Amino acid sequence: MNAASTLRHLIPTRWPLIQAPMAGVQGSAMAVAVSNAGGLGSLPCAMLTLDALRAELQAITAQTSQPYNVNFFCHTVPAHDAAKEAAWRAALAPFYAEHGIDPAAIAAGAGRAPFSHEAADVLEAFKPPVVSFHFGLPAPDLLARVKAWGAVVLSSATTVAEARWLQAHGADAIIAQGVEAGGHRGMFLPANTLGEHAGLSGTWPTDWATELLTQQGTFTLLPQIVAAVQCPVIAAGGIADTAGVRATMALGAAGVQVGTAYLLCPEATTSAVHRAALQSPAAQHTALTTLFTGRPARGIVNRVMRELGPLSHAAPPFPTATAAIAPLRAAAEKMGVRDFSPLWSGQNTAGCRAVGAAQITLNLAEVLSI
Amino acid sequence: MNAASTLRHLIPTRWPLIQAPMAGVQGSAMAVAVSNAGGLGSLPCAMLTLDALRAELQAITAQTSQPYNVNFFCHTVPAHDAAKEAAWRAALAPFYAEHGIDPAAIAAGAGRAPFSHEAADVLEAFKPPVVSFHFGLPAPDLLARVKAWGAVVLSSATTVAEARWLQAHGADAIIAQGVEAGGHRGMFLPANTLGEHAGLSGTWPTDWATELLTQQGTFTLLPQIVAAVQCPVIAAGGIADTAGVRATMALGAAGVQVGTAYLLCPEATTSAVHRAALQSPAAQHTALTTLFTGRPARGIVNRVMRELGPLSHAAPPFPTATAAIAPLRAAAEKMGVRDFSPLWSGQNTAGCRAVGAAQITLNLAEVLSI
Repeated sequence: MNAASTLRHLIPTRWPLIQAPMAGVQGSAMAVAVSNAGGLGSLPCAMLTLDALRAELQAITAQTSQPYNVNFFCHTVPAHDAAKEAAWRAALAPFYAEHGIDPAAIAAGAGRAPFSHEAADVLEAFKPPVVSFHFGLPAPDLLARVKAWGAVVLSSATTVAEARWLQAHGADAIIAQGVEAGGHRGMFLPANTLGEHAGLSGTWPTDWATELLTQQGTFTLLPQIVAAVQCPVIAAGGIADTAGVRATMALGAAGVQVGTAYLLCPEATTSAVHRAALQSPAAQHTALTTLFTGRPARGIVNRVMRELGPLSHAAPPFPTATAAIAPLRAAAEKMGVRDFSPLWSGQNTAGCRAVGAAQITLNLAEVLSI
Repeated sequence: MNAASTLRHLIPTRWPLIQAPMAGVQGSAMAVAVSNAGGLGSLPCAMLTLDALRAELQAITAQTSQPYNVNFFCHTVPAHDAAKEAAWRAALAPFYAEHGIDPAAIAAGAGRAPFSHEAADVLEAFKPPVVSFHFGLPAPDLLARVKAWGAVVLSSATTVAEARWLQAHGADAIIAQGVEAGGHRGMFLPANTLGEHAGLSGTWPTDWATELLTQQGTFTLLPQIVAAVQCPVIAAGGIADTAGVRATMALGAAGVQVGTAYLLCPEATTSAVHRAALQSPAAQHTALTTLFTGRPARGIVNRVMRELGPLSHAAPPFPTATAAIAPLRAAAEKMGVRDFSPLWSGQNTAGCRAVGAAQITLNLAEVLSI
């Protein structure tokens, strides 16, 4: 069996096309539309309460009998750090003043929850056929629970070393996430470690700016991961149209994961300012930024990224940056202003269309038909 | 005519394959071998004196009747800045001490010269059929001299805006240089300017680390440049084998430019430590660094990149960083140590083979045959 047929065996959708889970801009409606169209619809779960997770799973299973994917982050929630939180609020202070926001009224909080036994309790009632993770994999006992109901496990790699790690730790297929991708980089092994693997002396600086200098585009990451692992590899990052799909196939992909192209769909919950940005010349200009969550994620450059710098050291650790910037986003969006919104986008918006998610899926799948 | 046939009309080589000019690691021998094999051999001229340039052109024209390319940088040489030079030497001081080097004995200097009327004087006697530039294009009067003998003019774009600028200012074909590429990024329009084009408020921070967050991989840069310009687009960055060539064709490339795959050829002047690094696990770990010249260029991570940080603010403006670090390189290489060498490499060394440049050319060209 080649990698493509292995993937089809693992995930028996009509086409090896995964709609990328995009927390904050889509829910069950998108997943249902894509799964019913023959792709693999995804439900991003990192920002859902347990009750909301249950409700979304009920919505999906009520509307499709096709395979679907649920996606979770697996990060460690950092201890509350009053000094870092204060520094972050100090950096945002001029913006609070401008918008008449009282920072004392803003509660600190995590914003995004990692996969947990409580979430697994909810999932067990539904037994989702595919579970994908970002930032590595959950602890072995938690991963074992997912595997116990037969779920196929996916996770993202941004380096060859991460792909090897994921294969060794239980991933059934690997998503090669090129640096072109929108949203969070899945990075979970520091380049520092890679340096040690390569027998280098000295300490690699641990700031994000330096770390990101080593990240790879889809064009080189994909074939090197394909060569390094035995499991199927799914290409992600910059795939906007059938030409992009064909190019990933030439580079050895068993399937593709596409996110940005779905952002204008009616099934997406993309905000009005975000939709406008995606259709403007500003979409040419994305950057990786830590300002919205604390980890690097790619979005269209806006005012706060320009004024603080996209990787400002003032941003506290993931996922705690969200709480303090969220009220600014809400206030600005009310005025139709995108200055403080995370405008997630990959580096190619040419595939974005304000048509149904089924149509986006069918257009991309055209060259995937066997 | 489609883009590929237009390129063939402009550059009548057997295959639309350009050997990337790589200053410091190759000269006329490589260019001759590639041109005679049916690709477009390139002579990097930024580090050649006028006498050396003339000698290299004599060597090429004596050994091939096929088209060849000469490549120049077009940067502005910065005024000598004693404070910046001193700061750079201070950052390198512990390494000088370790190697018993007297920094007072090191002359400051540029290291790389931009294209000039004096260089054009030398070229005019040879009328090279193709002239490629990095960092934009030379001043209009200088470009006019090149065009006067009928040379086809190429230059590299790292953004869609740069590609449009190059087309408007006289480039006959554009090299789309994905961030995977080894050596210097061709960046010449700051992302700052792009932000202004997109109607953004605020000032984009002007440090390299921030600027690089916006750079694109081949996978998204190539198709967007193809869509934005009328002239043929040549893909560069991460192309290691025929699969990579096929993928660029799927994305609309009229031809390819390949560098890293040639670095182990006998015709290359790649140093022993550089060859060893390319064949080691360390080659998995490249980063963009300003330490060797002052501008970001991709190379394999080594000790000085780790210890100073690859984009250390201590590095003075391009191209003046070279002078102070060169004696460290020389001293370390004598001991077989690569700690201070610019180990230029793209992000995929899978195509590197210690075989003749003609063989590398023929292997890649296999899927380009019409």
